[in-house]
Amino acid sequence: MGHGPYPSIGAGGGVNPQVQQWFRAVDKDQSGFITANELRAALINAQGQSFSETACNLMIGMFDKDRSGHINVEEFEKLYTYVNQWLAVFKTYDTDQSGNIEEKELAEALTKMGFRFTPDFVNFLMKRCDSGKVSVDSFIVLCVQIQRFTEAFRTRDTQQNGTVTIGFEDFLTVALSCSI
Amino acid sequence: MGHGPYPSIGAGGGVNPQVQQWFRAVDKDQSGFITANELRAALINAQGQSFSETACNLMIGMFDKDRSGHINVEEFEKLYTYVNQWLAVFKTYDTDQSGNIEEKELAEALTKMGFRFTPDFVNFLMKRCDSGKVSVDSFIVLCVQIQRFTEAFRTRDTQQNGTVTIGFEDFLTVALSCSI
Repeated sequence: MGHGPYPSIGAGGGVNPQVQQWFRAVDKDQSGFITANELRAALINAQGQSFSETACNLMIGMFDKDRSGHINVEEFEKLYTYVNQWLAVFKTYDTDQSGNIEEKELAEALTKMGFRFTPDFVNFLMKRCDSGKVSVDSFIVLCVQIQRFTEAFRTRDTQQNGTVTIGFEDFLTVALSCSI
Repeated sequence: MGHGPYPSIGAGGGVNPQVQQWFRAVDKDQSGFITANELRAALINAQGQSFSETACNLMIGMFDKDRSGHINVEEFEKLYTYVNQWLAVFKTYDTDQSGNIEEKELAEALTKMGFRFTPDFVNFLMKRCDSGKVSVDSFIVLCVQIQRFTEAFRTRDTQQNGTVTIGFEDFLTVALSCSI
């Protein structure tokens, strides 16, 4: 029995064919894995924008649990889904297509993504950006970091009340795992 | 009344003369502030070792509370003190002067610095390093991160019992403030 035009290889069978195609295009050395550098080259080509090394390292790091420096096609599919969602939100608010959004738009974008942050917190996020605006690159970095910390927080928020009680070593582990 | 050979300018009067001298040497454009790039150039020259951009950004970020991208001479003095302490510890354990220490030595170094980490945590730290060894560069990055997170933790550990109860937004603020 065939699986259509795309071969189903092992565990890769469940991956969306379009994502598999993208993966093969990004995986320049055909190793079966994508590194931060391969991702960076691909994102420049596909979006017409340059992503920083930091952004690409963080993106790979989201799924690279064993710190091998690369991700496989299943992990890539998850990353692809996240990044496309984030880019879609960003584009909604970047109405003049300048590649930047402002504080008010960042607040709206985060709300749309399901977060309820205080204005002070959004202002704190803005101050982390250099220019008083949020570039698409910084937006992705921010989303990756928020995503990773949110996951780590949720795991520990056993009563789902928005607070966690955490020991020093565990705190350090979370913080270090999600930073560079 | 004089203050010796070094002029006392405003708040800079309390700064160790040797540090002031170092500061002036590092501050290539004589702006009165040191950037990560100036720090990087100076560390290459002074220690005969190259520090990564990440390490220098993190070092500046320790004291650059307003995210201006630079630090003044008083902030530099604090950084100078920290880094010298860390380098001294590192050198103690790098007995063959290879510029690298191993897991057992990292554990001892951290203990010497006053931390009581479990073997699992030290092992987790090791896995963050690429080569199975800790270079002086990664050691400094690790020390900066641990230092910053420890300060953030202590502030919140009001009962000094080694655990904090922390809300989602505050958790994110700490984590983002101490990462890049």
